[in-house]
Amino acid sequence: MSFLEQYSNTRALSVSICSALEKEDYVVQPVADVSPPKWHLGHTTWFFETFILKPYSIAYREYNPDFNYVFNSYYETLGNRVIRTDRGNLSRPTVDEVYRYREYVDQAMAGFLIDENFDQPLLELFQLGINHEQQHQELLWYDIKYILGHNPLFPAYQLQGIEQHLTNAAQAPNEWVEVPEGLYEIGYKGAGFHFDNELSPHQVYLQKTTVSSQLVTNAAYLEFIEAGGYKNFNYWHAEGWDWVKNNQIAAPLYWHMIDGSWFEYTLSGLKPLNPDAIVAHISYYEAAAFAQWKGMRLLTEFEWEIASTHFNWGQLWEWTESAYLPYPGFSKAPGAIGEYNGKFMVNQKVLRGASVATSPNHSRSTYRNFFHPYLRWMFSGIRLAK
Amino acid sequence: MSFLEQYSNTRALSVSICSALEKEDYVVQPVADVSPPKWHLGHTTWFFETFILKPYSIAYREYNPDFNYVFNSYYETLGNRVIRTDRGNLSRPTVDEVYRYREYVDQAMAGFLIDENFDQPLLELFQLGINHEQQHQELLWYDIKYILGHNPLFPAYQLQGIEQHLTNAAQAPNEWVEVPEGLYEIGYKGAGFHFDNELSPHQVYLQKTTVSSQLVTNAAYLEFIEAGGYKNFNYWHAEGWDWVKNNQIAAPLYWHMIDGSWFEYTLSGLKPLNPDAIVAHISYYEAAAFAQWKGMRLLTEFEWEIASTHFNWGQLWEWTESAYLPYPGFSKAPGAIGEYNGKFMVNQKVLRGASVATSPNHSRSTYRNFFHPYLRWMFSGIRLAK
Amino acid sequence: MSFLEQYSNTRALSVSICSALEKEDYVVQPVADVSPPKWHLGHTTWFFETFILKPYSIAYREYNPDFNYVFNSYYETLGNRVIRTDRGNLSRPTVDEVYRYREYVDQAMAGFLIDENFDQPLLELFQLGINHEQQHQELLWYDIKYILGHNPLFPAYQLQGIEQHLTNAAQAPNEWVEVPEGLYEIGYKGAGFHFDNELSPHQVYLQKTTVSSQLVTNAAYLEFIEAGGYKNFNYWHAEGWDWVKNNQIAAPLYWHMIDGSWFEYTLSGLKPLNPDAIVAHISYYEAAAFAQWKGMRLLTEFEWEIASTHFNWGQLWEWTESAYLPYPGFSKAPGAIGEYNGKFMVNQKVLRGASVATSPNHSRSTYRNFFHPYLRWMFSGIRLAK
Amino acid sequence: MSFLEQYSNTRALSVSICSALEKEDYVVQPVADVSPPKWHLGHTTWFFETFILKPYSIAYREYNPDFNYVFNSYYETLGNRVIRTDRGNLSRPTVDEVYRYREYVDQAMAGFLIDENFDQPLLELFQLGINHEQQHQELLWYDIKYILGHNPLFPAYQLQGIEQHLTNAAQAPNEWVEVPEGLYEIGYKGAGFHFDNELSPHQVYLQKTTVSSQLVTNAAYLEFIEAGGYKNFNYWHAEGWDWVKNNQIAAPLYWHMIDGSWFEYTLSGLKPLNPDAIVAHISYYEAAAFAQWKGMRLLTEFEWEIASTHFNWGQLWEWTESAYLPYPGFSKAPGAIGEYNGKFMVNQKVLRGASVATSPNHSRSTYRNFFHPYLRWMFSGIRLAK
Repeated sequence: MSFLEQYSNTRALSVSICSALEKEDYVVQPVADVSPPKWHLGHTTWFFETFILKPYSIAYREYNPDFNYVFNSYYETLGNRVIRTDRGNLSRPTVDEVYRYREYVDQAMAGFLIDENFDQPLLELFQLGINHEQQHQELLWYDIKYILGHNPLFPAYQLQGIEQHLTNAAQAPNEWVEVPEGLYEIGYKGAGFHFDNELSPHQVYLQKTTVSSQLVTNAAYLEFIEAGGYKNFNYWHAEGWDWVKNNQIAAPLYWHMIDGSWFEYTLSGLKPLNPDAIVAHISYYEAAAFAQWKGMRLLTEFEWEIASTHFNWGQLWEWTESAYLPYPGFSKAPGAIGEYNGKFMVNQKVLRGASVATSPNHSRSTYRNFFHPYLRWMFSGIRLAK
Repeated sequence: MSFLEQYSNTRALSVSICSALEKEDYVVQPVADVSPPKWHLGHTTWFFETFILKPYSIAYREYNPDFNYVFNSYYETLGNRVIRTDRGNLSRPTVDEVYRYREYVDQAMAGFLIDENFDQPLLELFQLGINHEQQHQELLWYDIKYILGHNPLFPAYQLQGIEQHLTNAAQAPNEWVEVPEGLYEIGYKGAGFHFDNELSPHQVYLQKTTVSSQLVTNAAYLEFIEAGGYKNFNYWHAEGWDWVKNNQIAAPLYWHMIDGSWFEYTLSGLKPLNPDAIVAHISYYEAAAFAQWKGMRLLTEFEWEIASTHFNWGQLWEWTESAYLPYPGFSKAPGAIGEYNGKFMVNQKVLRGASVATSPNHSRSTYRNFFHPYLRWMFSGIRLAK
Repeated sequence: MSFLEQYSNTRALSVSICSALEKEDYVVQPVADVSPPKWHLGHTTWFFETFILKPYSIAYREYNPDFNYVFNSYYETLGNRVIRTDRGNLSRPTVDEVYRYREYVDQAMAGFLIDENFDQPLLELFQLGINHEQQHQELLWYDIKYILGHNPLFPAYQLQGIEQHLTNAAQAPNEWVEVPEGLYEIGYKGAGFHFDNELSPHQVYLQKTTVSSQLVTNAAYLEFIEAGGYKNFNYWHAEGWDWVKNNQIAAPLYWHMIDGSWFEYTLSGLKPLNPDAIVAHISYYEAAAFAQWKGMRLLTEFEWEIASTHFNWGQLWEWTESAYLPYPGFSKAPGAIGEYNGKFMVNQKVLRGASVATSPNHSRSTYRNFFHPYLRWMFSGIRLAK
Repeated sequence: MSFLEQYSNTRALSVSICSALEKEDYVVQPVADVSPPKWHLGHTTWFFETFILKPYSIAYREYNPDFNYVFNSYYETLGNRVIRTDRGNLSRPTVDEVYRYREYVDQAMAGFLIDENFDQPLLELFQLGINHEQQHQELLWYDIKYILGHNPLFPAYQLQGIEQHLTNAAQAPNEWVEVPEGLYEIGYKGAGFHFDNELSPHQVYLQKTTVSSQLVTNAAYLEFIEAGGYKNFNYWHAEGWDWVKNNQIAAPLYWHMIDGSWFEYTLSGLKPLNPDAIVAHISYYEAAAFAQWKGMRLLTEFEWEIASTHFNWGQLWEWTESAYLPYPGFSKAPGAIGEYNGKFMVNQKVLRGASVATSPNHSRSTYRNFFHPYLRWMFSGIRLAK
């Protein structure tokens, strides 16, 4: 695929994910971790403008200098950012204006991408821009679901919510896969795109492990609830238990008990809970408590990477026991791009795999996703080991 | 004017105030005291639906029962309200849907209002509904200004902002009006519409007072700033000083120092500060500190009511020294309507007069407006006495 | 009584109030509104040192300059104060050291007070110092009760708690005292000590009022609780209702339901609730809600001052409906002493009367006490009017 | 050493650490992470009473059932605990009473310990009690220093503060120790006391590492400060940078700039900063930022354990890059004792080594200490690797 095709396909997918939104849906920010969809559309555009067009395209004229302030993210090297929790207060630029901005930048990029003789740094920036937008495509799904799923009218977004794919592959029976003790190589080794946090490849010694081939289902999770799982501190980390009590948590994020039956908000609206589907929108605290109740445990990210050849994965991000830390030899790239991953390497947990919301071509077994342990608005689930 | 004309005119004005909004502007809520414009449009409609159509119009069918939850305000008798700070999270119902709701209720009201033989309670509810919507029209101006004035793009809303009227009448020189000591009657005595908090009329003994005929100007307020007014606790109430320090207050709400000059955000955009205009968007704490610095004081609401015949008023609500308390003989009406005023009679200050944002026919010299002393997003100003 | 006798008696009473404390009791600060007893002992000493000895006694040498920082209160003119909520973190100076500080200043004051030819300003400072210490004597009672009453061991402080006096005088039946409509004079008119906030005397016009001769009893208040008073928002101010819900308030401050019976913590320990005693430790919100439930109201401070000749008062401070505002002609004295009262004249309610914790000779019918409406650790009660 | 000697020595050391405290120092709790010294004395006593005397000593009679509530810690299985931040509000039980409680329990333990034929579970509980008290001895040092070091009088506690030992051993020049790549065994393998989190021993593959033999000195850290280390976000984790800004951090915990010179609060009072001493009271965020500025990094806990044979350690706990996670095969013991370590295995960082405040016989190279990354009131320092 040519650079231009890659670019155009990626950019079109972001627009397509938002195509069923009302203008009002683009604007709101119900909690700090959710961003308004129009911000995602603007921010991914700003990324190409700031890191490719402005430094490399002589003829390019910035669309609007104020957008640097509005659509910047965490990149502290590039001037004051909008305080993250304020994004939902900004009615302007309007949605139409953001789409005009996208078109303006897309046209400039189309001209720029005709010449495919990129040197290596520019090539890497381009690939980073593509992968960055794919990450935001996944966040768009999370945020759209959160915005609509926390509206008292519970509006449907799609006829068939992407949650329909949250089933264990072929409904096959669960199997226990054994990973023998020994030295294994971990980390990205190929020539394709990868993030700096997947480097460098290195050896890790693993103990013998037995891993479930299937993810935990709603039915199994319901047993945990009915056994008093949310009421017994013994299953929880101390911080997890504080989280349960302070937020009065009693079920996964989108579950609602209505007239004695469990319902689940999905992107096609409120539906009776499907016991055979895999349980989604789970925090690390919940995943760990469930495992503790079962007398089992979560995998480390290294066990996951080695075992993953033996099972299907990709419906939900899978919490691991591993903290998000640098691999041996990791060092932050200098400058704004260097802020991409390394600065988050404290107090977060690694998730491995991919989810139904992950963009095509944006998953690999060495991919290290990471979230704070209390978060659960992403499509996250549980795989057990013993 | 017929009931229908009164109704139609009032309803049309609300729509007119919003006519220049983008859809996105209708949705956001930058701080808890500001409501999204679409909420005002829905809530005023809900008021007529709930208190007139549903109890009195047999044929009326409720538009959407969920709207009771979404557009309720403080009326605790009518079921769970939306937590006030959550209003800015709701992308649905959409703006178009809210306008459809208005049209639906307006049609039903039009049918209902043809018969003008209302009994007294119904008549009072109708008048309350009109006055209630007029109050929200004023809030719409405050909230639209806040939403646009806190956007980093500082968009203009009107060619000529309503602030153009914030001048002392005819630029006449200030005069000091004397109110002699003696017994005066206070409170509403006519037959027209009035709120319960204006009753009952009663005698108040006033000391001799001398009152400024003009409101404080930007130029005069600037002197206070340049004399270190915001840096010297001696001028401030203890709570006012805490407010200044905790919020790093250094000027009125919409003032911005840019490259050494003062600018002011108005509904026609960012403008150089006009020294001759009257100072607006002032908290009680600031008004009292300014008066203390001047060696003067604010009026009580009783002094204001008596003195007001001697000067022009209506550009800005004027802070008084009076706390918002019940008049002798005041008692709360029973039921939801009874919650209207009495429940706020603690920790608020009375403001008298009216402002450029006040709807026509919605001002009288006995009107008791009230706000918490730290608020200043409304059109408020300072009149001095000595 | 000579100055020295006045001084010595006052100083001895503060020490006497604390005489049954353990050293540990002197140190803690369970909530921001409570101060550690040793702070009261130091602060009242610092007042005499700072405002009398240092400016007027040439030979005086400051005890310890750091104490200015530790024992200052709100007097912002006198350098950085200890942040109020930090007082409970300070283990030093020790209690013994604070008592040495008291003795050192007392000796210096004894020498200074032999000469009784004070000019008027010095005389006023001296009287202010005495009255200031008397105010802190009352606070000592509140704070000691709070500290011990919030300890899970519920220790007794006295054999006979001062609460034994919380009975309606002579258990006389309640009478309704009528105050006729008319003009009355309000404010302090004598030659003795008084605070600036009691000035100047001025005329106030009152409507006809009927006032209860007795304060509300525990039995009467219990009826309110049992009638669901804390569960029905209709009786409450909006802010009062928020206070009830946010703090899960369901009874007066020191009441405890134990095995189905009500107990009350008193300074002589936990005791079965006495239904005939008058209800104490009531917030304004509760007082107003109780009155609303009864279909009655609280008095204004002006009604109270006029009616007070017709009933006994002094067991509990009585909440009034009046906000704490300046009297006509009030102006803040310049400098640190001027901060004494005026700076608190916003968002507080006036209480009139006196309490069982009030120091002898420190009560008069024009005295204006004031507290925020949510507070109730002081000895406060309810008198009704209709 | 006999059980009784072990017990008596340990108990005596806790008392000895507190011997120079004033009674007032025993009571206060300036921040949530600090506990009042009397609480430590009571809690360690409660541990022996609850886990040994009550279940195993038939004749034992509980000292005071209320103490279970007052001196409980995190052990959720044992009834409601005092909310941690409330400990500083409790003036009772008094210090004298807590010492009586210690003596009562010590006498009972002395009788119980005469019989040395403990079965294995009881033996383990006894050893856990000893080690638990040793942990609190170290916390006593931290908390005493915090309490006195945050008092505006900066009182000295000792003639020679324990900080005098914070020098690099023998002032030897720094050397770089190389650890070759390869498989190593990690974890406790002996027969002595150890915590569950040190198990089970397992193999870990390490890359080649070069480790500094000396800890970072005050002089070196001062260079970081003077190079703008606290003002440049590039050196910091995103959460670390938020911590710096929100708390206005600009130097290690006890450093004070006075008249242009750096001073350091030590247990012998405020002293000029000693540039040759090793830098102490450092958070993980600071340690990581310093390493980033140096172009180096912190060790992992595994690297530390292997390298530690090549250098002296024990003056300060050394931050590692490792998150505090379970070793392979770790599982929580059931019941209250099982809550000891496992429940904290999220969002904390491992520190290795020991400090000048560590009790004798309470350090070993496999010991895994852990704290949240923002904490720095403990004796913590920095060792670099490259």
